[in-house]
Parts: sequence; C-alpha cells; structure tokens
Amino acid sequence: MSYSILDRASLPSYLGELPDVVNILGEGAELDIEEVGDGNLNYVYKVRRADDPERAIVLKQAVPYLRMVGEAWPLSRQRMTFEIRGLQLYNQLVPDFVPRIYHADEDMSVLAMQFLDSHIILRHGMIKGVVYPRIGQDVGTFLAETLFKTSALGMESIERRRLMDRFTLNDELCKLTEEFIFTFPLMEHESNYSNSATDEFARRHLRTDTEYKLRVLKLKELFITKTDALLHADLHTGSLMVNESETYVIDMEFAYFGPFGFDIGKIIANFLLSYTSHFHHSDDDSYQEWILTEAMKIWRVFEARFLALWAEQGDSAMLIDGLLADDELAEYKRRFLLDIFHDTIGFCGCSLARRTVGIAGVADIRDIPDAQRRSELEITNLELSKLLVLQHDKIDSIEDLEAMLRAFYDSRSTKLRSHISG
Amino acid sequence: MSYSILDRASLPSYLGELPDVVNILGEGAELDIEEVGDGNLNYVYKVRRADDPERAIVLKQAVPYLRMVGEAWPLSRQRMTFEIRGLQLYNQLVPDFVPRIYHADEDMSVLAMQFLDSHIILRHGMIKGVVYPRIGQDVGTFLAETLFKTSALGMESIERRRLMDRFTLNDELCKLTEEFIFTFPLMEHESNYSNSATDEFARRHLRTDTEYKLRVLKLKELFITKTDALLHADLHTGSLMVNESETYVIDMEFAYFGPFGFDIGKIIANFLLSYTSHFHHSDDDSYQEWILTEAMKIWRVFEARFLALWAEQGDSAMLIDGLLADDELAEYKRRFLLDIFHDTIGFCGCSLARRTVGIAGVADIRDIPDAQRRSELEITNLELSKLLVLQHDKIDSIEDLEAMLRAFYDSRSTKLRSHISG
Repeated sequence: MSYSILDRASLPSYLGELPDVVNILGEGAELDIEEVGDGNLNYVYKVRRADDPERAIVLKQAVPYLRMVGEAWPLSRQRMTFEIRGLQLYNQLVPDFVPRIYHADEDMSVLAMQFLDSHIILRHGMIKGVVYPRIGQDVGTFLAETLFKTSALGMESIERRRLMDRFTLNDELCKLTEEFIFTFPLMEHESNYSNSATDEFARRHLRTDTEYKLRVLKLKELFITKTDALLHADLHTGSLMVNESETYVIDMEFAYFGPFGFDIGKIIANFLLSYTSHFHHSDDDSYQEWILTEAMKIWRVFEARFLALWAEQGDSAMLIDGLLADDELAEYKRRFLLDIFHDTIGFCGCSLARRTVGIAGVADIRDIPDAQRRSELEITNLELSKLLVLQHDKIDSIEDLEAMLRAFYDSRSTKLRSHISG
Repeated sequence: MSYSILDRASLPSYLGELPDVVNILGEGAELDIEEVGDGNLNYVYKVRRADDPERAIVLKQAVPYLRMVGEAWPLSRQRMTFEIRGLQLYNQLVPDFVPRIYHADEDMSVLAMQFLDSHIILRHGMIKGVVYPRIGQDVGTFLAETLFKTSALGMESIERRRLMDRFTLNDELCKLTEEFIFTFPLMEHESNYSNSATDEFARRHLRTDTEYKLRVLKLKELFITKTDALLHADLHTGSLMVNESETYVIDMEFAYFGPFGFDIGKIIANFLLSYTSHFHHSDDDSYQEWILTEAMKIWRVFEARFLALWAEQGDSAMLIDGLLADDELAEYKRRFLLDIFHDTIGFCGCSLARRTVGIAGVADIRDIPDAQRRSELEITNLELSKLLVLQHDKIDSIEDLEAMLRAFYDSRSTKLRSHISG
C-alpha cells in the first residue's frame, strides 16, 4: 500500500489486515494504543488488547523527518527499510536477542514486533542502579555472533557482497553518525549541547588538541570506509531492553557495514558514561564495580565467542583452510583481534565525547538538574575520551584497559564522590 | 534487446542500428572485422570500414565465462555492467585518459568505443624498450583525479554512498582478485604457474614465511573491506594504450570501491616487472633507468596532484572547512598520504608475486623461452616482493623507496646482466 502516517485513529484498521498481528490481538477487539515518546527518530506505539493487556504488539513507523527535531529536519523514511532488513537478518543470526517480527512493510515504513512486556530500557535500569546478571555475557555474545557471521571471516566473498548491497544506501543515517559523532563535537556547532564549564573544557582541551582531533578523524575515516561487518551502528544502553534473564537488542535503523570496533566501543562507552554518572547516583562504588566488570566482560565474551566461531568456520572470503600452519593461524588471530581491540577503544573514546558535548546526551547525566554538578561529570567523561582516543592503539589487552580505567576513576573518585548532593 | 553472443556474421547488422557507430562507420559500408585475441575475459573486435580503415570502432562484449579458460570457468557477464559504469564515470572525471563511448548496452553486455589507431598496449612497447615521455606524468594524474574525486575527501557523504551502490555487486571479479592476488600465490594451487627453480623458491622463502603471509593477508583484508575510492582495480601495463603523446586507460571491468593504494601499487609493480625483464631484454641499464624514474614519477605526480585537488576542495564527507587549523591540516595531509604510500608499497609487493607465480604472468618475462633464465628473473621478483611486503609500512618517503629499489637491483645487476643470452 502507499505510504501514509498512521495514528491512533487509523492504527486499528491497519492492524486488522495483518494476519500475524490478528493472531496476537484477536479480531475486532478494543485496543489500548500508547505512543511511546522517547524515540529520537520514529513513532513507536504499544498496542494492547483492552480486555487482555498481555496480548500486545509494538508498532514502529518512520516519518519523513527526524522526530526529535520535527519537520524542520527532513530525513527520508528509507531508514525503516534498513531497520527491517537488519532485524530480519538478526532474527536469523541471533533470534534469542531480538524481537520477533509480525509484519514488515517497506512501503509503509512499518515494523510490527513482539511486545517486550517485562523488559525495560537498560539505561533506565542502570540509572536506578539495577543489576542485570546476564548483560555483559549477552551483549558480548550478540556482538560476536552478528559481527563474525557478517564478516569476510564468516562468509563467502560473493554472498557477502550481495548482503552488503542491501545496506549500502543507508546513507542518510551514516551521514548523521559521521557528523554527530566524528565532526560536530570537534568544533563549535549550533547542534551541540551547552554547559559553560563543560564548553570551556572542550574548547581548551579537546578542540585545540591536534593529536586528539587527528585521531578522531582517522577513526571517522574507518567509519566511512571500512566495511568489516554489518553493524547495529547505534548500540547503546537505550537500544537494549532487558530484564534479569533476557537481553533484547532493538532499533537497528542505522544498520550498515562498518568497522568491527564501532558497535563494541559504543556500547562500552555507554557503560562508562553510566559509571561516571554513579558518582552522583550512588553513595558508594559497589554499582560502579558491577558496571566496570560487565563492561570488560562485553569485550572478554566477544573475543572468546568470536574465536570460537572462527574455530568452527571453514573456508571464507578471507581465509582458506590450511593456508596457515597452526602457529601462523594463532598469530593471525592474535593480530586480528588486537586490531579490533584498538579500534574498539578508539570508538569508545569518540562516543564518550559525543554523548557529552553533542546533541544527543545520555539521561544518566543530562537529567541531573545541577549544571555545576553535571559539568564535573561531563569533564570527567571528556578527560576519559581524551585518554582513550590518544592511547587507543597502545593498549594491548583488556587487563591493561581495565587497569587504566581503574586508575583513571580512582584518581577522581574522592573529588567526585565528596560532592554528593542531598 | 535480449542477450546473444555477437560474431563476425551478426556484428554488421547489430552495429547498423547504433546511431553513434553509424556516424563513424557510415551506413551499409563493407566492414573489416578483426577479433583481438589477447583479452583474458572478453571478446574484443576491431571494426574498420573496408574502403576507409581510418573510420573504425572497437566493440567489446562479455560472455558468461572466463574467456582465457573457456566455458569450464563460468563468470557472469555482469562484469560488463561495471565496465560500462566505470568507463562512463571516467569519461566525466578524466576524459583525456579514456576512450569515448559510442554505445553502451548493459543487456547485451556490449561497449562500442573509440578506436585507438596510433596507440599500442604499453606492455608491448616496454618489452621493445620504447620510451614514452608522458607515461609517469599521465598515470600519476589519472590516479590522483580518479581516486581523489571518488573518495570521501572529494565527495559529499550521501552522493558518495549512492555512487558506491552502483559498484557493490561487482562481486565475481572482486573474488577473482582476492583469490589470484592474495591467496593462491601463498599456497600450492593448481592454477599457479610452474617453473621448477621458481617453485622451489616460492615454497622455501614465501610460503613458509609467516610474516610475509600474515602481511599479505592484512593487505587482502584491506582489499576486501576498505572502500577508499573507486578503483580501476586492474591497472597494469596491459590496460594502458599509449603513444608518444597520449595515454589511454582501458579495461575497467574490475571497477569497484577499494583501498587507494591498490591501483597505484599494481601499476608500479608492473613497471618493476618490466625493469627486471630488461636484465634480459636490454644490453645496458639505460632503459631500466627510464623505467625506474617513471615508476617513481607515478607516485610523485599522484601525490602532488592529489594534494592540489585537496587544496581546491570545499566541505566533503571526511572534512569540514575550518575544522582544522592550518598546521593541523598540514599534519593531517601528511599522515593521510603516508598511509596511502604504505598501502601502495604493500600492494606493489603482492602484485609482484602474483604476476610471477600466479596464473596470469606478464609477457615481459613469461615469453622468455629459456626456463632457467626466466627463473632467475622470477626469483628476483619474488625477492623484491618479499622486501616490499615486509617493509611496506616502514618506508616513509618516495626517496627512501627509490633508494631501496636501487640498492636491491644494484646488488643483483652483475649476476643478472652477465647471463645475457645471445
């Protein structure tokens, strides 16, 4: 059908035509429709049967502009095409970590999905200090499965270029990332967030630091030109829905082929942003200790699972079985994972700065009302961004990264904790 | 029209329907049709008016298999689609360096082009020791113009991804390159060329050299995953047609987005293969001196022209005007070009080995009848391949590369020259 923007009035009849949705909601039942207001890009509706709210679906529709800004920022709704393709692929690769699809319609830019009833956005849980025992394990597994299996190590050459072809044109959202992560934070830009002490730090210590800027530009080059694997490309604690026993990844409208380290670095950065915020939200470091352990576990599990998948893999675009002797293969794997690790730390550093001075901050910190207090935490994040971006290709193991992060936070802990507001 | 394989019998009526071709050949004239037998992949016909051979065109048609092997090696004729798209783009970017197009037909996999009457394949001229005064200048200029203007430095982000989308599916020829350049030379493979002393050297000094193999695999990874710019992707001395005053680039069926250094390294490698061959073809080093000077000029001109284009460029996907201060920009450019240079040397090293032990050798050396003599030259090329692949990221200037090449050849010159056969 031709495109039209759905609303509360038109949704029931639209949904009534979709067999898999009718299977869930029943035919002709009265529906409770709730628009979820926290999407940056799209409209998201929770649709429940009025007399049986357990029977529910989620419907997501893209509109031809950036929802968080409005029609003043036009953005083609083709992004939903790539979310559909990404979610369909993830349903094959990692069905335990993504919502089931009931209906996908590229023409209407609509996706109807499993309702995650008992799950909340990970970011909201982490702000409250909730422990999720599986999170590091699940995210690391998700990353290894999706990145390895869409890489030239996990696919045959022709099959892989045909898959890439389905994502090349996700050009508008790639451009958003290029600008919002790798460009605007490096300069004075009208879209940037503003908080005077934070601005002052960015001006004096980031935007005039040549080495920092050139390294961010090198990472930007990787983002633009390196097609290691299909990325989620917007994997942060707001795109994970969790409960104690399950982890779901949502919102893959940014999906495209990019560098391995981008997804891994971005999600770890969001854990570190939460860590910093808990100098404010927590009275002691016990929750921070959990965050750091899980953040490091993301990498550790990713690496172990990536190597396990590699061990099971036959010929691929990159490597023919038997080309390397056992010791050569071990060394090749070591270098391959080290390159990913270095990129991961670099992208983590970029994400920390972007979420601090760029347009899209994290609620973990932006929702703290006291601007002065916020600024202390923001400057901490910028200092950490600087450390990681400048050192990213010199940190050679997860143990070294963990030690560096502990030393960094320890040196600031007394000052940041002593300011606890009442 | 639907696809059919053209031949001498069907060509005249096919050509009679094409207005731009009729403009050249006239209507209903008797035609001399010559099939050029040296294409690896396709059929190529020279079509001249019998009573006026100056009026002529070239017609190229892809068949659904690898022509040099036959129907036993199926290869989709979609490659002609990418040659057409590549040549159309080059006609916009570098019209002085490519044949004019009279007719392009993706359905028939046919391209009718300007007949290059007074030009010969550069490789044939170089085997005979002919000097082409413009070659280094022209090839360097061609490389800078095509690579810069299709890169993220020379294009806006969205426009660039849309261009990439037109080449992503050139998957079969990418796979050929991945195998023939970056895989089979590293192993015993039935497709490889065989010459006993050369085989012995490859077995003992390349295929058991872990560092060499791992570096070739890293360069293979770049080839598969790095989309710096639209490459010709098969730029060797057999894909250049030249005379004293003009240089034409032909055969862009491999066109796709890959790493900057690939085209540059491959054409320089072919100059070095010619250099080595002239220990046999020449009595002294005067022609070799010319070859080396021009090979180095390819890089020098490329670099200067690339930087000149950059200086004229406004905002691009990679860089916003004013983001970097002047000294920062100078340092960014230095690093950017150094990365390209390192990759160039690496790909040059890979190409030397591929053209020596792989299926597609160069006539410069393969046509030398004496297997023992040939082997001396082949081993020289493999030694040079090894030197360049192992050192590629440690050679930081064209002066250092030139000095290294001179030292390498000087140390072998007496031995290789003394063997001149009568």
